[in-house]
Amino acid sequence: MHDLVVANGTVVSPEQGVFEADIGVDGDVVGAIAEAGSLDGERVVDAAGNHVFPGVVDPHVHHGLFRPLDDDARTESRSGLVGGVTTTGNIFRRGESYLEIMDDHVRTAEDNYRHDYFFTLGLLSHDHAAEVPEIVSELGITSFKWYMNYKLDVAEMFDLERNLLDDVADHFMSELADVEAPTTLAYHSENSEITGHLTEQLKSSGATGYDAVVDRFPGYAEAQSMVSGTNLARQHGYDDDFYVVHVSAEETANELATLQEMGYGVTAETCTHYLCLTREQCDDRHKINPPIRSERHQAALWDRLADGTIDVVGTDHIANREADKVGDDIWESMWGSPSSATMLPLVLSEGVHEGRLSLRRAAEVTSANAAKAYDLHPKKGAVRVGSDADLVVVDVDETRTVTPELLQSAADYSMYTGREVTGWPTHTLVRGAVAYERGDVLADPGHGTHIDRPIGV
Amino acid sequence: MHDLVVANGTVVSPEQGVFEADIGVDGDVVGAIAEAGSLDGERVVDAAGNHVFPGVVDPHVHHGLFRPLDDDARTESRSGLVGGVTTTGNIFRRGESYLEIMDDHVRTAEDNYRHDYFFTLGLLSHDHAAEVPEIVSELGITSFKWYMNYKLDVAEMFDLERNLLDDVADHFMSELADVEAPTTLAYHSENSEITGHLTEQLKSSGATGYDAVVDRFPGYAEAQSMVSGTNLARQHGYDDDFYVVHVSAEETANELATLQEMGYGVTAETCTHYLCLTREQCDDRHKINPPIRSERHQAALWDRLADGTIDVVGTDHIANREADKVGDDIWESMWGSPSSATMLPLVLSEGVHEGRLSLRRAAEVTSANAAKAYDLHPKKGAVRVGSDADLVVVDVDETRTVTPELLQSAADYSMYTGREVTGWPTHTLVRGAVAYERGDVLADPGHGTHIDRPIGV
Amino acid sequence: MHDLVVANGTVVSPEQGVFEADIGVDGDVVGAIAEAGSLDGERVVDAAGNHVFPGVVDPHVHHGLFRPLDDDARTESRSGLVGGVTTTGNIFRRGESYLEIMDDHVRTAEDNYRHDYFFTLGLLSHDHAAEVPEIVSELGITSFKWYMNYKLDVAEMFDLERNLLDDVADHFMSELADVEAPTTLAYHSENSEITGHLTEQLKSSGATGYDAVVDRFPGYAEAQSMVSGTNLARQHGYDDDFYVVHVSAEETANELATLQEMGYGVTAETCTHYLCLTREQCDDRHKINPPIRSERHQAALWDRLADGTIDVVGTDHIANREADKVGDDIWESMWGSPSSATMLPLVLSEGVHEGRLSLRRAAEVTSANAAKAYDLHPKKGAVRVGSDADLVVVDVDETRTVTPELLQSAADYSMYTGREVTGWPTHTLVRGAVAYERGDVLADPGHGTHIDRPIGV
Amino acid sequence: MHDLVVANGTVVSPEQGVFEADIGVDGDVVGAIAEAGSLDGERVVDAAGNHVFPGVVDPHVHHGLFRPLDDDARTESRSGLVGGVTTTGNIFRRGESYLEIMDDHVRTAEDNYRHDYFFTLGLLSHDHAAEVPEIVSELGITSFKWYMNYKLDVAEMFDLERNLLDDVADHFMSELADVEAPTTLAYHSENSEITGHLTEQLKSSGATGYDAVVDRFPGYAEAQSMVSGTNLARQHGYDDDFYVVHVSAEETANELATLQEMGYGVTAETCTHYLCLTREQCDDRHKINPPIRSERHQAALWDRLADGTIDVVGTDHIANREADKVGDDIWESMWGSPSSATMLPLVLSEGVHEGRLSLRRAAEVTSANAAKAYDLHPKKGAVRVGSDADLVVVDVDETRTVTPELLQSAADYSMYTGREVTGWPTHTLVRGAVAYERGDVLADPGHGTHIDRPIGV
Ligand SMILES: [Zn+2]
Ligand SMILES: [Zn+2]
Ligand SMILES: [Zn+2]
Ligand SMILES: [Zn+2]
Ligand SMILES: [Zn+2]
Ligand SMILES: [Zn+2]
Ligand SMILES: [Zn+2]
Ligand SMILES: [Zn+2]
Repeated sequence: MHDLVVANGTVVSPEQGVFEADIGVDGDVVGAIAEAGSLDGERVVDAAGNHVFPGVVDPHVHHGLFRPLDDDARTESRSGLVGGVTTTGNIFRRGESYLEIMDDHVRTAEDNYRHDYFFTLGLLSHDHAAEVPEIVSELGITSFKWYMNYKLDVAEMFDLERNLLDDVADHFMSELADVEAPTTLAYHSENSEITGHLTEQLKSSGATGYDAVVDRFPGYAEAQSMVSGTNLARQHGYDDDFYVVHVSAEETANELATLQEMGYGVTAETCTHYLCLTREQCDDRHKINPPIRSERHQAALWDRLADGTIDVVGTDHIANREADKVGDDIWESMWGSPSSATMLPLVLSEGVHEGRLSLRRAAEVTSANAAKAYDLHPKKGAVRVGSDADLVVVDVDETRTVTPELLQSAADYSMYTGREVTGWPTHTLVRGAVAYERGDVLADPGHGTHIDRPIGV
Repeated sequence: MHDLVVANGTVVSPEQGVFEADIGVDGDVVGAIAEAGSLDGERVVDAAGNHVFPGVVDPHVHHGLFRPLDDDARTESRSGLVGGVTTTGNIFRRGESYLEIMDDHVRTAEDNYRHDYFFTLGLLSHDHAAEVPEIVSELGITSFKWYMNYKLDVAEMFDLERNLLDDVADHFMSELADVEAPTTLAYHSENSEITGHLTEQLKSSGATGYDAVVDRFPGYAEAQSMVSGTNLARQHGYDDDFYVVHVSAEETANELATLQEMGYGVTAETCTHYLCLTREQCDDRHKINPPIRSERHQAALWDRLADGTIDVVGTDHIANREADKVGDDIWESMWGSPSSATMLPLVLSEGVHEGRLSLRRAAEVTSANAAKAYDLHPKKGAVRVGSDADLVVVDVDETRTVTPELLQSAADYSMYTGREVTGWPTHTLVRGAVAYERGDVLADPGHGTHIDRPIGV
Repeated sequence: MHDLVVANGTVVSPEQGVFEADIGVDGDVVGAIAEAGSLDGERVVDAAGNHVFPGVVDPHVHHGLFRPLDDDARTESRSGLVGGVTTTGNIFRRGESYLEIMDDHVRTAEDNYRHDYFFTLGLLSHDHAAEVPEIVSELGITSFKWYMNYKLDVAEMFDLERNLLDDVADHFMSELADVEAPTTLAYHSENSEITGHLTEQLKSSGATGYDAVVDRFPGYAEAQSMVSGTNLARQHGYDDDFYVVHVSAEETANELATLQEMGYGVTAETCTHYLCLTREQCDDRHKINPPIRSERHQAALWDRLADGTIDVVGTDHIANREADKVGDDIWESMWGSPSSATMLPLVLSEGVHEGRLSLRRAAEVTSANAAKAYDLHPKKGAVRVGSDADLVVVDVDETRTVTPELLQSAADYSMYTGREVTGWPTHTLVRGAVAYERGDVLADPGHGTHIDRPIGV
Repeated sequence: MHDLVVANGTVVSPEQGVFEADIGVDGDVVGAIAEAGSLDGERVVDAAGNHVFPGVVDPHVHHGLFRPLDDDARTESRSGLVGGVTTTGNIFRRGESYLEIMDDHVRTAEDNYRHDYFFTLGLLSHDHAAEVPEIVSELGITSFKWYMNYKLDVAEMFDLERNLLDDVADHFMSELADVEAPTTLAYHSENSEITGHLTEQLKSSGATGYDAVVDRFPGYAEAQSMVSGTNLARQHGYDDDFYVVHVSAEETANELATLQEMGYGVTAETCTHYLCLTREQCDDRHKINPPIRSERHQAALWDRLADGTIDVVGTDHIANREADKVGDDIWESMWGSPSSATMLPLVLSEGVHEGRLSLRRAAEVTSANAAKAYDLHPKKGAVRVGSDADLVVVDVDETRTVTPELLQSAADYSMYTGREVTGWPTHTLVRGAVAYERGDVLADPGHGTHIDRPIGV
């Protein structure tokens, strides 16, 4: 008798493919995978006719950036559960000593998240770089972010003595290369010296509208920065743990393919908005960096996601309200948009249903690969005995129209409002608990917990 | 209540790695994988302290070649079970119409095998080539062999009108490329025009001893033939289903790496004797084609097996008796030696214990990868609910000295007699039945069955 | 005062590009290259308004194959001079000992050639292979031919004991790899086991017309054979001296590009008919092996010639008369056609004038690269002080209609009869002598001489 | 009767190899290349027993940097002539408008150079970038420099508004990509954000001696910067005209090889001091950026120069006096050292005589390849009729001990003082005039002239 059984579903295992089975949950973990119909449980979640995916790992969210962390943790994990998200990687940055402040933040997070989470800490200074070994050994945080886009802004943004020039990156890369535990360095590719100048020019030329966003961040300036940063990792023998976030441009995807062919171990992520929107569909609500580009970029990203050049889908989720987000003009509008909850549905709708990805590939790019890249696997991202019972039961054929209400974020808009999307969770389980069921978020704040790394599995 | 439970073992899953679990068996298949200690069974196999591997798939044996098929099936599947073998691929050739004769052979096999089996049929003539579509659709046999080594001999050997020149290969490759079901073409790499001439020269020069075998079959003549044959497959768009058997030479392994880098999908196999013996250790009992070579080849093969250039281990098993095998001199000695039963133990002993392979890689190369190459997966080669319950419980730390008695083959010698080998099965399960237990073969002839392909999973 | 001056022309140097200059000739060699208009000569060839190319090296002719060598040497070197040919490589084969017979043949050649020549000897047997070192050291012949197309025919064709299987090739490749002097092995790519069978099938099916020739020799059977043969050379460390003749198929050109990318040093040749004709333009007069193929092959060959994958143009010239050549049907028609004289004009007309090649590239592919491949350079193929004064003055804008009369071959037809071709020699100089001038062949039989290799320059 | 004849020498032609010839000079240019002993001249330079190289093109000097341009032009071209230099590329930078100031500088240069010269202008600002098209069309200057090492210093150094961030580079690269004439962008690879920080650290740690120079500029920071800058060129489709100066580190050489394999057209230069010195041999007189490194770097650079990864040798020549150069400690010492005059002798002595380069390769890397990279060819860098008669007669076997007096620079020291060097010019000709003869510089200031590009040849 298991605590809970997900019964009679079609399991979509990133590693073992698609097969019918019951999944028995005992406590937090998968206790059994067994012939469909064979398991007994205190509670039974009926998955007959539906698919069972490993819980979505959204490795790229920003919680606590525009709103307090406790608020974001409460509302955005609520929203995530609607979309099958069971783990988020919160890319988090402060100018202060992480060793001093993270206990507080983790405590706040611990009280408020409904699903599990980990932090990826922005390394902004030599002081941060020097803290890397202790962050890993003391805080159980092993992933870090290199904000190439803020290279020339961190001093002002965070009241630091110096900007984030490559000496800082060189420093933290050295520290990372020396740490014994597996670590990850996430990288925002952007040649901000180029984009900064373009921004000045565009502003002074009176450019406006979504074109102004696209033109500020040309694809080649993303691609060149990706090569430049990845090569610095390579010089430190660290390219295997280098992780390029939100690839948005065909140029970048092509350069990644070339680097991988040359033996670089670099991993890359794209986001659902680059896969599912084009610039023509965008307005101030879609203001994001990097921007949403033209059709040719979108097509290239799907191809590179299918062929393995890009291995992970994330969202760059930020919760904000339309009234705050949309300013007087595009320049005054806020960065970032909410989208964790639509990640899996969109990958199913536009990826699987459009024939671009197999079901199994969908499970890889929404769960297993992010878990591997961030060293959460096989605790997360796997359907295996002993792995956390993070599972999503999905009706891959259910079509819904996206509305903010559906998504239950603090944000009162979506980049996809009005879109028909096919493939929605019926149940989301987080470590064995039914955290979401057919429209209702059941998990309370505090059900989620921090994933200490390196994981013990 | 399962029919049988393999309890408390450490599962070595090719796809999911190493974890503790019970495995429940219902009928022929895996019914459940569950937390260690949680399952009940009519029967319990205690695997505590031991590892549970997927049953060994030896894709390269010759049953019915020197001895009648019924005899070989009976005795050699008995021997295989001792070593954890649960499926063999019998590379089988006759000059006659396979459509006419295979029913009989399958019937014979069906009555005598103790473990499961499939056939790989040698294509020797245009008539054979023409039969390919019907063999696939009627006989459930989807794998074939191209004997490049017999290129100039098949007419005489099999009383055929013509030899096995490339027109025949071109013919069957065309047929194979046209068949919709997945198929496999196994290839014996050997430039027999070169080796044939060397053989004449060596014979007339009075060469003898094991050197005469090595010198007949230089590595470069294997490598060149591999490239030549694989390129013909490439011309037919068939390189993804091309399978190079018994790679024995560093030159071949290096050329394979180059072809794969160029985008060829070719799969390659090596055999335990190339990994675990060097020519200095060999005498007439080791007469085999290709020959066992020097240390540098052995080292290269381990490296290429670890790095994925070579993906499968097989044995080229042939049962014969030492009195028959060893002739007056090396020229009179017979080809081939028995070795299915030592395959997994040697991979563990010389591969895993020597730090050349991980446990998981051992499971890949002894089971999953052969199953994939021959389109048996995930029925075979996987530890998954619904997969055949072919399992081997292994005490990876048990050391035994190889003797013919230990191996229970019809052969009364082994290439490894006297060697201390660490890592032996305690139990072998074939489709749920305990077919071998601590020295005793329990499965009767006829327990094994033909694997019809394409498999329905 | 030079013996002769080619005055005021535009020199097209394969190595130094295009520039105005006088070229002074002293005896056999270039004595001076000097400012246009500056040199005095006993005789002056006025090249004002015209271009001066290095003499054409046609590395692939068959003289003495269907007609006696003395006849061919006399008439076909006459024809060659019309087209600017100053050196031919005669691919020559006999079953007998070359050491015994070549003195006679060279004597015959010496009495009859009007331009210079060298031999490339077909290696047909182990006896031939064994002669390689002495042929090089005694006869000054350093280039050889591997007739893969006659693999299964040489025994009958040449009354030999055995056919030309790979053991023979392996033998001569070993010998070649051991010779210290630079050597060349020319290779006719054809999987004759495949083409032989296709031939039988086509014959018995009643196929006829030019399609029957094309269908006998599919491009993939050329490509696969090229890879197979080149890899055998690679196994002997001899790929840098391996020379693939008459590439006719896109498949082969693409495989060549791949091999070169992998580091193979192989050189390749195509012929004018593959560049300037398509199968639709062909009839029995164009029967040649390999056949003239479709437009896509032609386009690929021009591209590969421009990008350096293919480095040499030759002709495969054979003199025969239309009455003999054209038989009752395509099966009865003779192999081979005359085309040395049209080689340079066609490369200029279809290559340079159509924008596919630069003038300099034209000089490389018609002269320098063949001279390098056959180790004649810089004696041949260069416009340099001390090099042989083999020069062609060309009016690149002169258009003529091809007729047999124009070409002065013993052949009474041309594959190009009636075609307008732009770019014709006004003068051809062979070692300083004006051998051809505006329609008149001036060189007598015997003016040409054998090029002993290795050359002393 | 030529104005001058270089008689009976062994010509070392980068394009045509090594052969005996007379070279006749008429006015500025080569009027004839003719059989040795055949030419008459008003004047005859006897080259019997010696080699005749194309005049050395040193593409990397700094004239007018520490001393006035007129002084440097006078004395350093004097010194250059001693070493066979006939053309220098003066890498020249000013903060002002080049369109406004270069006329003056060219006039100064015109009055003072004894050999020919061209300018490569440092692009330091958006204003400079905007001037690129007019510089090319009006000033005949087509090569430019990207000082990555001064990225963060140009504002202060040149009193500019902003530093040389990538937006400036992006700007001038766009302009360059749009110019129709062939142009060149020379690039100093250095991640100055990393080296700047290391410099601070080393200074504050009290580091001193030559180690302090080496440790400031680690090889990987050069390599990474090379990749980063070259990739930006690639994004503009400009990598074929991208030229990496003074490669000093094995890491950089290896990355270059990788980029070239991936199809980048980038050209690279190293300098004689990286080839002929190691850090152990260095003191304050060798303070230079990048620094002279260890033996492994030197060995790698010779290998890459031989194999074509690196194609050009330059010097980074700067004239200064030891009293000025050597400061109180390494930090106070000046950058740069004189070495144009030793360039060819060292390449012959350490390259050719040590078996690392052929004579022909020496002529390529000291003359032709720089001429091609800077679009001076075939006016410069070729031994061809019509090319400038810039020639060096060299006694490749003459050994001399380096002294400042020998070199005739304004500098009173050499990095090679006391070294025995074998291979010295006997005569240097600049556009037909004997500018240097056995110890005496004969050319007056003003003999040299600016090379307007694109050249008309
Ligand atoms: Zn970002
Ligand atoms: Zn982000
Ligand atoms: Zn075999
Ligand atoms: Zn076999
Ligand atoms: Zn041929
Ligand atoms: Zn031919
Ligand atoms: Zn510099
Ligand atoms: Zn410099």
